[in-house]
Amino acid sequence: MTSIDLNCDLGEGFGVYALGNDAELMPLITSANIACGFHASNPLLMARSVLLAKGHGVAVGAHPSYPDLVGFGRRAMEVRPEELWADLVYQIGALAAFCRAEGARLGHVKVHGAMYNRAAVHRDTARVIADAIRSAAPDAVMVCLAGSEMTAAAKERGLPFVEEVFADRAYAPDGTLVPRSREGAVLLDPDLVAARLVRMIREQRVEAVDGSLVPLRFGTVCVHGDTPGGVAMIREIRRRLEGEGIALSSFSG
Amino acid sequence: MTSIDLNCDLGEGFGVYALGNDAELMPLITSANIACGFHASNPLLMARSVLLAKGHGVAVGAHPSYPDLVGFGRRAMEVRPEELWADLVYQIGALAAFCRAEGARLGHVKVHGAMYNRAAVHRDTARVIADAIRSAAPDAVMVCLAGSEMTAAAKERGLPFVEEVFADRAYAPDGTLVPRSREGAVLLDPDLVAARLVRMIREQRVEAVDGSLVPLRFGTVCVHGDTPGGVAMIREIRRRLEGEGIALSSFSG
Amino acid sequence: MTSIDLNCDLGEGFGVYALGNDAELMPLITSANIACGFHASNPLLMARSVLLAKGHGVAVGAHPSYPDLVGFGRRAMEVRPEELWADLVYQIGALAAFCRAEGARLGHVKVHGAMYNRAAVHRDTARVIADAIRSAAPDAVMVCLAGSEMTAAAKERGLPFVEEVFADRAYAPDGTLVPRSREGAVLLDPDLVAARLVRMIREQRVEAVDGSLVPLRFGTVCVHGDTPGGVAMIREIRRRLEGEGIALSSFSG
Amino acid sequence: MTSIDLNCDLGEGFGVYALGNDAELMPLITSANIACGFHASNPLLMARSVLLAKGHGVAVGAHPSYPDLVGFGRRAMEVRPEELWADLVYQIGALAAFCRAEGARLGHVKVHGAMYNRAAVHRDTARVIADAIRSAAPDAVMVCLAGSEMTAAAKERGLPFVEEVFADRAYAPDGTLVPRSREGAVLLDPDLVAARLVRMIREQRVEAVDGSLVPLRFGTVCVHGDTPGGVAMIREIRRRLEGEGIALSSFSG
Repeated sequence: MTSIDLNCDLGEGFGVYALGNDAELMPLITSANIACGFHASNPLLMARSVLLAKGHGVAVGAHPSYPDLVGFGRRAMEVRPEELWADLVYQIGALAAFCRAEGARLGHVKVHGAMYNRAAVHRDTARVIADAIRSAAPDAVMVCLAGSEMTAAAKERGLPFVEEVFADRAYAPDGTLVPRSREGAVLLDPDLVAARLVRMIREQRVEAVDGSLVPLRFGTVCVHGDTPGGVAMIREIRRRLEGEGIALSSFSG
Repeated sequence: MTSIDLNCDLGEGFGVYALGNDAELMPLITSANIACGFHASNPLLMARSVLLAKGHGVAVGAHPSYPDLVGFGRRAMEVRPEELWADLVYQIGALAAFCRAEGARLGHVKVHGAMYNRAAVHRDTARVIADAIRSAAPDAVMVCLAGSEMTAAAKERGLPFVEEVFADRAYAPDGTLVPRSREGAVLLDPDLVAARLVRMIREQRVEAVDGSLVPLRFGTVCVHGDTPGGVAMIREIRRRLEGEGIALSSFSG
Repeated sequence: MTSIDLNCDLGEGFGVYALGNDAELMPLITSANIACGFHASNPLLMARSVLLAKGHGVAVGAHPSYPDLVGFGRRAMEVRPEELWADLVYQIGALAAFCRAEGARLGHVKVHGAMYNRAAVHRDTARVIADAIRSAAPDAVMVCLAGSEMTAAAKERGLPFVEEVFADRAYAPDGTLVPRSREGAVLLDPDLVAARLVRMIREQRVEAVDGSLVPLRFGTVCVHGDTPGGVAMIREIRRRLEGEGIALSSFSG
Repeated sequence: MTSIDLNCDLGEGFGVYALGNDAELMPLITSANIACGFHASNPLLMARSVLLAKGHGVAVGAHPSYPDLVGFGRRAMEVRPEELWADLVYQIGALAAFCRAEGARLGHVKVHGAMYNRAAVHRDTARVIADAIRSAAPDAVMVCLAGSEMTAAAKERGLPFVEEVFADRAYAPDGTLVPRSREGAVLLDPDLVAARLVRMIREQRVEAVDGSLVPLRFGTVCVHGDTPGGVAMIREIRRRLEGEGIALSSFSG
């Protein structure tokens, strides 16, 4: 039977501030990417996020970032490779400690925001990420944008990895994401997104904006819970996948 | 043969800023308390500090703090127990990851500054520290002010611990440290400090400011490398201990 | 005609995080206490908050705090007087620059959270606050808890001040606020709160929890927009005050 | 009589950390660029730095940066124009408040590190800086790299400005600085630097690395106090300038 993983960024509040609705999301997903304090979250929220994921049988991953709380990790920064490596080891190690404390397993690492965008197109950045994961959590799976430099780096480094697609994003004919700034970059219709995703999973290819079909192998689908209508869309995706007999289970076992 | 451990706070620079002279200190001590980014240090410096300690055969410990970079962790803060626990797990986990990355062992945890002062006299704070160590690094030894609430909490929680004295600080007749603000609280004469320390080690008691002898069992001696004359004093302490046939070795094995 | 000021903490989001609903609140209040980046807010949000207040004819004040983003300025910190003074001058100066940039006037300063609680009962802290206001914004009015050490310090220093009461908080017979941790400390019924406030304004005294009447002179009333029902309560307060012929206008002119 | 200004970055410690030797530098320079808490410094140090400058009759300027304490503001960041503007207004306003508190005058603004490098070649960034200065401190002079986009933006905006050259840096034939990463980019011989500077001041042109002479009008010379030999070089520069009858005085009056 076909199965797929749904991963979602979670635990992205900070102090008194909430973001998204993690309690509502947890029952809907199979892998949680938990913020590590550099773009969002704080230690107490990390502990709670790990506990919440564990309570729902959701696989736990680290979601590290550039150090940029005020910019939510979305601003590109010129960070030297050794700084990047150390920033990642620090964050992964911190989340690993909460996993140990709560009896959960740190199954994967997915980098956040501007760092993700950079690593998708820049092999050296992706290599540093792979190296940091191997240093801090050698058993963790690296989550890579399907077909990107991240995948190439993970292969090079012999690191376990999983490739991901975005359920609600338009693709260019070369397999890259259409930038958010372009009209139509983000898909909003739950029906359409769910139907499109079923096809993507069955065929392992995605329909680009020009109608061409791009082959993309992937093992996980990124969904978003912090947008208006996000939770409703994830519900519709789950409903459709279950109706199609596609099982939902975490890639990290 | 009698042996003793010399522990020292290290890795307390931040970004471009240096503090103390770690390279000079490392050959002189047996245990390093490495800052974890909350009162000092940053990820890259943590990595380098672990590597430096390992290169000198110095035992590595975490030196976590309240979140207060600008105040160097020296300002008392009212932190709720669950926040304190999470802040500690976060920092210990981060340092543990650098230990794993560099092939070192995280052998102990000693809390910093205002948190240390609080835990010495406040059992609940000391308990939370013990709990956090057990959560994040169950094999690590908790460093406790000799005869303080920290020792009591470590015993209560069944955590491995070591008690420490301060080589260069005056003691009150009740075994507490004379506050730094009082005249004579900090001893500056290397000869006197070294001689006094030999006696403390041999007799497991310390001469208080009123001349009385206070019994204090301890397994490690805290020395300071970031004060004027600090390195010279540590050199003198080592010279004297070696002359007296007292071996220097880490308590955490 | 009797008139009163309604002041409210605003601009307390941070980066991507929102808190409360400032756009909804602004038409309801007469003075805005705008966060300055130490417990909440960031420069861009400060600019927008000043502009929003100005657009609604609401008087602008600075709302500085201890440096504690993750704790939202609610955690007591031991800060030396000269540090406290400098932290306040920094924040007030930053907000003053946005006022200048947007053509608004910085009319008052009200300190936040744990600093407010400390200053209410600790004369030295209140003096430092008065001194910092005089240094950074000599024309600004100091907002003081009615009958507290803040008022005494403002008088001592010859600083313009206004005393405030809390519309939705229970008072002890000695005129202090009942701590939030006690049952009944926060009043939730808009009708009751509004009626009580009208009486407080007319009589310049407040009914304490034991039924006694405590004389309290005040020129402004603190209302809260970030609690459930907060906005509805402010609407009811306004409705009632207007019905009673009590005008709403800022104390800082 | 010819006169020139010597400007230097100062007040760049942080909390317990010192950087450079401000007390030694102050008697040697005529304008101080004081860090504002984003790449270095903290409120208390800002207050002390303003006081120190004032005590030596040195003109005070703000030295704002990207928000990057751990990277000392040397890392390029993608900051949106409105964020950049607000970050600058915030920092300039904070320093202006310390000037007011200490009875000093905020005479100029010079941006720091990565932001400076960006503004030198990117007109839009330079425009935002000019706009922020006009918003927060309309009378302050904008310090611009001689012949750069910063100068162009200041002219466009009608802002008072002064152009600066670097005493100890090699120039390319097009008038730009040779990047620090290239050999010979930084000049270390005090004699040579001082002689070269005298010629630059007299001729208002600089000898480039290929021997060509590049015309560069300037009113201030940037010197560095935080490098080994930095203070000695500034002493030599002063000695030589005075010997040549070139007066030292601040451009901001």
